[in-house]
Amino acid sequence: MKTRDRILQASLQLFNEQGERAVTTNHIAAHLGMSPGNLYYHFRNKQQIIAELVARYEAEVEGYLQVPQGRALTLQDKAHYLESINQGLWQYRFLLRDLEHLVSADPEMAERYRQFSRRCVQSGQAIYQGLVDAGFLCAKRANPEALALNSWLLMTSWVSFLCTTVLDGEQSELTPAMLRRGVYQVLSQELGLLTEQARPAIEALLAEYYLPLDGIGLS
Amino acid sequence: MKTRDRILQASLQLFNEQGERAVTTNHIAAHLGMSPGNLYYHFRNKQQIIAELVARYEAEVEGYLQVPQGRALTLQDKAHYLESINQGLWQYRFLLRDLEHLVSADPEMAERYRQFSRRCVQSGQAIYQGLVDAGFLCAKRANPEALALNSWLLMTSWVSFLCTTVLDGEQSELTPAMLRRGVYQVLSQELGLLTEQARPAIEALLAEYYLPLDGIGLS
Repeated sequence: MKTRDRILQASLQLFNEQGERAVTTNHIAAHLGMSPGNLYYHFRNKQQIIAELVARYEAEVEGYLQVPQGRALTLQDKAHYLESINQGLWQYRFLLRDLEHLVSADPEMAERYRQFSRRCVQSGQAIYQGLVDAGFLCAKRANPEALALNSWLLMTSWVSFLCTTVLDGEQSELTPAMLRRGVYQVLSQELGLLTEQARPAIEALLAEYYLPLDGIGLS
Repeated sequence: MKTRDRILQASLQLFNEQGERAVTTNHIAAHLGMSPGNLYYHFRNKQQIIAELVARYEAEVEGYLQVPQGRALTLQDKAHYLESINQGLWQYRFLLRDLEHLVSADPEMAERYRQFSRRCVQSGQAIYQGLVDAGFLCAKRANPEALALNSWLLMTSWVSFLCTTVLDGEQSELTPAMLRRGVYQVLSQELGLLTEQARPAIEALLAEYYLPLDGIGLS
């Protein structure tokens, strides 16, 4: 792996585990057994590392919010979307905890995020339209635009909700199970919209992401 | 009005109009034609004013998230919940823009907010259960717990979504219409869950909060 990529990977890990504010470029260099000078050769400062991680987050999310061309959406596609959301939430949890704040620190990043967020809502709309067209969701009741917007709001606010409302002295770290419940929340929007033929498979998928709220200290 | 209340009212107005970071205690005092010393007699610093506004926000939200005792929920109750959400979003928009950040600055405020947010999710669950019991939502499909959690996420993230994704150089201020669309998003969750007898009235209510996304520069 290139040094630049190793720095990004270690930074992401440390930010996720210890919180971005608690981690300095010196910590990152020490974690990699690297001199601070070597790190500075690749990144001028922590803000530049964060900007690069935000760019990777954006590229990954856009990568998975694609609608297959020339064929209908399948259950497998749907399961893949959900698992991608789950992994994205976990992998970039430090960022999602404080996204508005990190992004608003830099006007260029803020403008790029604005465009990214708009494209994601549009992609989400195409996906929900695909789910209607493929017979998963009832065409008469499902509103792809409203669903896409709500899904985007739910996905981007779940980690910070966990941090403000669920974490406390007793449970002070995010767990993968907590993030799975976020995916359940996105999918639960479809409960009233499923066609009869799609319902059994989607309810089985929902069960995979279910976690009772008292399991995350919220009940 | 008491001086203390005048200071809070003016602070809320200025924070909403100009952003919290751009407003100092000197600006607030000048706006009220008051000496800074007189303001400091009531509030030690800006943080204390913010803490008091957060407390008022919490008290108001909890005030409207009540389920009537001894009778079923009515359409009027439902309309009242929605209008309260709408007014709360508008009235405390500066706070909702950056809530996690403002709240996390003070451990005592963070702990109070955690308890408040948990109680709101519980109250939301009681309200959705009330809507099922009163025959608005289909008992077989509606999941009051998931709906309450999603509604809370949508309500608390809408303003910051608008700020990161909708506002830009051309449209740099929140408008009441933008916040109404947030209420539409909350209510739109029910589209697949309405009973046949409730549908016409709720669809009429939805139409009242509808605003096309290109009307807020997002399409």
